Parts: sequence; C-alpha cells; structure tokens
Amino acid sequence: MRLTSIAIALALMLPLPAAAKQATRIGDASLAQAAQLRERALQDDTGWKVVESLTTEVGARLAGSEADARAVEWAKEKFKALGYDKVWTEPVTFPKWERRSESARVLGPHAQALHLTALGGSPGGTVEAQLVRFDSLDALQKATPGSLAGKIAFVDYQMLRARDGSGYGPASAVRSRGPSAAIRAGAIGYLMRSAGTDSHRNPHTGITRYDEGLTPIPSAALSVPDAAQLSRLLALGPVTVRLSLDCGWNGEYTSHNVIGEITGRSKPGEVVVIGGHLDSWDLGTGAIDDGAGIGITMAAGHLIGKLLKRQRPARTIRVIAFANEEQGLYGGKAYAQKYTADLRKHQLGAESDFGAGRVYAFAAKTPDHAKAAVAQIAQALAPLGIEHRVDGEGCGPDLSPFHAIGMACAVLSQDGTDYFDLHHTPDDTLDKIDPQALAQNVAAYTVFAYLAADAEGDFGSAPKVPAAQP
Amino acid sequence: MRLTSIAIALALMLPLPAAAKQATRIGDASLAQAAQLRERALQDDTGWKVVESLTTEVGARLAGSEADARAVEWAKEKFKALGYDKVWTEPVTFPKWERRSESARVLGPHAQALHLTALGGSPGGTVEAQLVRFDSLDALQKATPGSLAGKIAFVDYQMLRARDGSGYGPASAVRSRGPSAAIRAGAIGYLMRSAGTDSHRNPHTGITRYDEGLTPIPSAALSVPDAAQLSRLLALGPVTVRLSLDCGWNGEYTSHNVIGEITGRSKPGEVVVIGGHLDSWDLGTGAIDDGAGIGITMAAGHLIGKLLKRQRPARTIRVIAFANEEQGLYGGKAYAQKYTADLRKHQLGAESDFGAGRVYAFAAKTPDHAKAAVAQIAQALAPLGIEHRVDGEGCGPDLSPFHAIGMACAVLSQDGTDYFDLHHTPDDTLDKIDPQALAQNVAAYTVFAYLAADAEGDFGSAPKVPAAQP
Repeated sequence: MRLTSIAIALALMLPLPAAAKQATRIGDASLAQAAQLRERALQDDTGWKVVESLTTEVGARLAGSEADARAVEWAKEKFKALGYDKVWTEPVTFPKWERRSESARVLGPHAQALHLTALGGSPGGTVEAQLVRFDSLDALQKATPGSLAGKIAFVDYQMLRARDGSGYGPASAVRSRGPSAAIRAGAIGYLMRSAGTDSHRNPHTGITRYDEGLTPIPSAALSVPDAAQLSRLLALGPVTVRLSLDCGWNGEYTSHNVIGEITGRSKPGEVVVIGGHLDSWDLGTGAIDDGAGIGITMAAGHLIGKLLKRQRPARTIRVIAFANEEQGLYGGKAYAQKYTADLRKHQLGAESDFGAGRVYAFAAKTPDHAKAAVAQIAQALAPLGIEHRVDGEGCGPDLSPFHAIGMACAVLSQDGTDYFDLHHTPDDTLDKIDPQALAQNVAAYTVFAYLAADAEGDFGSAPKVPAAQP
Repeated sequence: MRLTSIAIALALMLPLPAAAKQATRIGDASLAQAAQLRERALQDDTGWKVVESLTTEVGARLAGSEADARAVEWAKEKFKALGYDKVWTEPVTFPKWERRSESARVLGPHAQALHLTALGGSPGGTVEAQLVRFDSLDALQKATPGSLAGKIAFVDYQMLRARDGSGYGPASAVRSRGPSAAIRAGAIGYLMRSAGTDSHRNPHTGITRYDEGLTPIPSAALSVPDAAQLSRLLALGPVTVRLSLDCGWNGEYTSHNVIGEITGRSKPGEVVVIGGHLDSWDLGTGAIDDGAGIGITMAAGHLIGKLLKRQRPARTIRVIAFANEEQGLYGGKAYAQKYTADLRKHQLGAESDFGAGRVYAFAAKTPDHAKAAVAQIAQALAPLGIEHRVDGEGCGPDLSPFHAIGMACAVLSQDGTDYFDLHHTPDDTLDKIDPQALAQNVAAYTVFAYLAADAEGDFGSAPKVPAAQP
C-alpha cells in the first residue's frame, strides 16, 4: 500500500457541505444481527483460506506479469466459490514494468556482494562509480547541481517503527523523490537504505517516479544491513560499487478489477464498498500486501452472503479486488472514473491494505447527520478491541481517488507495528499472518459492512469538486 | 560451526587413563588477577571492534575465495595491532568449492520463484522434475532403490529450536546424508527445508557429502517459507520444479591457520589454546559464524597481553584463527597433525564457535587431579552468570581432532537460542551481535585462559589412541 497517496487525497478533500438532513440510524435488529455475525466471523477461517489459496496457488503477482492474469482468474473463481451473487471484471490498463535480474558489488580491497533490489520503474543498466552518502532526502535535495557527476548517490535514511505506519511517509519519499534529486545533482545511479523497519538481508522494493524531463538512472534499495555495511565502509574511505540492473518498462498491459457482490435485500442498487488490491510486488507472495486485504474483505462479504435472504442487509455489499495498486493506484483510479456518476449510490467505503495486524481503531469522516450511526457501528466493533476515533487516518489508497470526489469512507486502522518489517520484501509470505488476528479483521469488516449497508439513511456521499492541484 | 563433528569426536574419545597425580591448583594471586581481568573485559570493546573490522573490511570469506586470502592478511595484521608477541601462519590445503549462481522455479499453473541455495559440495546442473516429498531423512532412507528415478527428492524436516543447539544434529543430517540417500533411490536432484529455526526467506547453506561410488546430484536448501509453500502446493497435486545450480569443485587451494601468541611468564613453551575459525560461508558476512569467535578470543588474548610482564600467566596464550572449518575442519585437522608430538605442551583448549550469545555454562572433562582447579575456574566465571556443569557438551569443532587424540578441552557453552535463525544465511551480519553479550564472552574467555595458563599443574592432556573408526 502507498500511504502518501492517502495524504494527498485528504489534502485535496474539500469541506463537506453543511446539511440539515434527518439523522442516519441503525435499528436494533440490525445491531443484533451484526453481533451474531461478529461472533461467527471470529470462529470462521474463510479469510485465512482465501489468503492461503491466493499466496500459494498464484504466489507473487506483479502487475502485468503472467501471474497477474492468473490472479484475475483466481479472484473470479474464488468469488463464485464463496457464493457471491454477481461476479464481474472491469479492465484496467497501465504500463508494464519488468524485473529480470539485479546485483551489486563493492569493488576494490573490501570487495563483497550487496543485497539490493531495483525500485519499481527503474531503468536497467550497469553503473560503476564511487558512492556519495547522504543522511536524508533533504540533504540530497540540497546537493549542488553537477556535484554528483559520475557518482552514485546513496541516501542512508532509517525508517522509524510506528503502530500507525507513520514512519513510512518520510521513508517512502526517499524512494519516490530521491532518484530525481540524484539526477539533478548529476548522479549516474541511485541507492537507498530500504524503507523498512527490519534487520534482515531482504531489500524492500516499491515504485519510484522520475520527474518530467529527467533521464532516469538505475535506482535500487539496499537491505538495511547492507546499507549499514556501506556506511561503515565509507567511514574507512572511498567506496566504489558496481550496480547491474536488468529491468524496465515494456509496453502496456490490461488487467482487471475483479468485483463480487452480495445483493442487498431492499436497496440492491446502493452499495457498501470494501476491498483490497489483488496485485503484489514480485519479491514475496503478497500475503500481508495485500493478500490479507483480499482475504479479509472476501470473507466478510461471504459471511454476510450466507445469511438468509430476509436477514440480508438492505444494500448490496460490493467487494473489489483492485488491479495494480502498487505502481500507481491504477485499479482505484479506473473505478473512480467509471463510477463517478454513481457516486451517490456508494453508501460508504472501507479498504483493507495495511497487513493482517488487528484492527485497533475505527473512524469515519461524515457529515453531522451520520455521526450517531457511525457511533453505533463503533459500539458494535468495540467488543473486538476497537476504539472509536473521531479523527481517522484517511481512506485506503485504492478508494482515495473516489473519496477525493465525494464518496464517504471509513477507516479500520490496523496495528502496523511489524508491517514494514515485511512490506515489499521476499519475506511477505503466508507464515507471517496470525490466523486469529486475521479473523478479528474479518469480524470487523463483516460488522462494519453489514451495519453500513443496513443503516436507515446515508453517510454523506455526495459529489464534490476536487480542489485544483497545486 | 558443525556440531556433528563434535558428537563424532566425543564418540571417538577413549576413557582417560587413571592417574594418581598431585592435584592441580590455582593460587589466590591468580584468582585476584582473573577477577580484575573479568571486570576490565566487561568494559572493553575490543571484541566488538575486531568483529566489526573483519565483517566489514573482509566481509564474506568462503574458504578458497579471493576473500580467504584477504582474511588471512587481516588476521595477521590484527594480531600484530593487538600487541601479540608472536604471529605466524601455517598452510592448510583443501579442495576449493565455488558458488556462481543458483535459482529455482515451480513450473506449470502455480508458477513461482523459489528461494534456495546450493549446499556446499553440490555439483552444478539444471534438473526439471516432479518433487517427491519426505517428512524426514529416515523416510527418504527407506525409499526403495529406483523409486525416485527421474524425480527430485524433497525432505521437509523442520529443525527444532534449543538453547544448546541440540536441534542441529538431526537437521544437519538431512543436509549431510540426504543427498546420498536420494541418489540411492534414483533421484536426479535434492531439495531440503533449510536446517534453520527462522521464518525468513533466507536459505541456510552448509557442506554436504556424497558417499563413495555415488554420482553427485544438484542439491540445495530452500528457505523455511519456501519449503512450507512447496508442501502446500504438493497437497494440491504434483509439483514440477526447475532447479539450476552453477557451482562445484575447482582444484585445490592453500589457505592458512593464523596464530597469535601472548608469551607466558615462566613456562612459555606450554600453551593454552583458544580460537575460532576465520572462514565463513559466502552468503552472510560471517558475524556470528564465526567472526564472533575470532573477536572474542583475539580480544581475550589481547587483554591478557596488556598485563605487566610480571602479571602475565605462567604459560603462553595461543589464539588460533582456523582455516576452512566449514567444509571439513581442515584447519583443525592440520593443527592436530602438525602438533601431535607437542600434545602434552597443550595445557587446555577451548574454542568459540557458536555465535555471540552469552556464555551460560562452563565444563571441562579432566582427570580427577584437575577437577578442583576446574571448579576454581568455574567459580571465577560465576559472576558472569555462568554455571559449572560437570558434564559439558563437547569440544569445539576445530579443536575436536586434537581433543580426539588427547588434548584436554573445556567448553564455554553459549546461548544458541537464536543462533540457527542466522547460521549459514545472508542474515549472518554484524547487526545481529549484541555488544554486551559479546563482552561477556570476552570476559569469560579471558578469565578461563588466564587461569588455565597460570594453574599449578595440568588438566590431563596426554596422548591417547583414537578408537578405530566403525
């Protein structure tokens, strides 16, 4: 997941128009049904089985790769097997980036191999040059143009650990903005300490961007121990590194958002949206990013779908497995574009894309008339150890484009203390997920989706004009 | 380090001859000096600096590689810089094994990459075949000859975690004996779950052997998550894997044991031996295996060497940085062969080759006349949180060949709870060492070596005839 995009979406959000609508309420029967669903979900292993199936049978599923197509087929079949009433796909087209091989070595008297991985979007190429180390992105950005001519820039910034993942903003900026800063200073290659909180020899990949008009240079992230090693070597004298990447953009690819619906009892044309993204980076098997989100939300819809017809919520539960989140929210943008006219039919949305840690907080930014209903949902979530926060952390990345134009969204905040130990690394594998924590997530999404879909009244979705980009 | 060799050495050891010698004793002045050294060592960072220097400046140092020669030069210079009185090298010749590249993929509908590493000693080659899974080495050994014709054998045994490393015996047997068992059953390739206790995507390498008369097959260890993944895939149906290894034996190489001495005050011709091994596997930088042992014992000798001449222990402290332990105890065997005639001059030996965890127990198997002195050493170690065990876990690997023919040896048992999370993986890097635990080790070796070298009387070193090999 990409937290920066959330911040951007929130920044773009205009104040909601004042309204004197009737208060949205949730009835007692709905609350009783949600309580039953909550207990059932905690005992259910559907979420786990879905993640196990996706990460085992498909494995890594880089957007545009052969496995991308297999993942789309898998999602269609899984929705059907889980009893969803409608299942369909919607095309999402994007440029395709490929990773073929990558290696690096320190040359000279301290010759040794380095563990690194190309940043998504990096061009291939082999460069051999001295390193120039910077403590921070800011320091690199202040480098005099031309001062890095013929050198490799190395930003050695250590990401900080936090439950809410707040360390990722500054760390991912080193990845997204560092290469362009290096090019401006004349560098021929770019290395960074991975945006990660672990101490394993597994580098963290992730997308980078090169500013318009710049000629991209080979750009890669070192594992945390390798970055520390380079800093120790640099303390002894100049360090020359040979960096060899074989990767790059290669045409376009059309993947698909895969959508499954549990049809609502009385207002089937209105939807509560939950989901996650189907693509993953190629290094791990995409268990926490974002197999977990797929498993959690597919299971939540499934549990609601198993109810008797008369127990179904009024509105439809729409579960979306988004295409290519990792390289630029392509699936989320395509969805927002396609459904702009149907925005008011979107009751509320929430996305699971921050691993498989327990949900510890719930928040929804809504107009005043919906605040009581939000509090009712929060109360139904409380037995799961979830607190109600009036000010949440923002919408999930794939829903952020739709949120930016007016869809109401809720946030179920997960404990991300360990998330960035694994995020975008080979270590993002099934064994890192705690089945009980995953079931707690399923319970939370089931309760949330059911109650939002069965509320009398809305949560404030309404078209708004996005603020002009700065 | 290789614990199997310890077990073998112990099994070969004959009972010590009965003796009615005068009891060995340690004087009060020696004990007071040792207590001072102990406190000084706990405040000293020489051990850390030595490991940092070796792992940073030399990095990985596979026996026979270009870095092997750099490590030998490094060790000579480091001994000198630490004030050792004598520094010299002794040649050690062995066959050279090279790792060039390695990769594997699941083929077919669940296509995905696997993380694995060739076992040391494996030939290169590419094989593409169905897997046949076994729960244990025993199950593979019972396979009917010919039953694995054209298949890849896969032993999916999970090593158990233990403070004393006792899980490594059964797990390393899967590595050392599995390939030959697979060949006997007709297999064309061999895969195993790594002998490790972690859950990271880092496979554990290590030496294997092919029995006489068998044609070696490509043999590799999967990371623990990859082995679990294959087992899940096998539960769904047949699995075909393409395994490509480029590695193998390539001539002979002569490296060196590097030896430094702190000359004794009054019996300089008698020595207490401590040490570790200088080589490492190629995947990590050999911090815990065995940079730590080199750092601990070099620092211990250094601290004793800094004493005033009249405070020096009676005997010489000999610190040995052994060549090529990993591929067959070549350095240890060469030492034992060269010094057979001088065996009685070896007062006592202890080796550090089990990481950088705290020492929790001390033991020495000695004749009765030395038991009181051993207890005195144990008492001097007790303030470090070290208990005296009457029955220890056996000599370190490199000293085991010398121990087998009669040298008395002591064991300072380290906490190895986490050792096999890192052992023989890319993750064996400096950051995994706790500087305070390392200093406790230095203190323990300093006290031990000083007191053993200053004892009045011996610890029972005497030539013995090794038992015939079974």
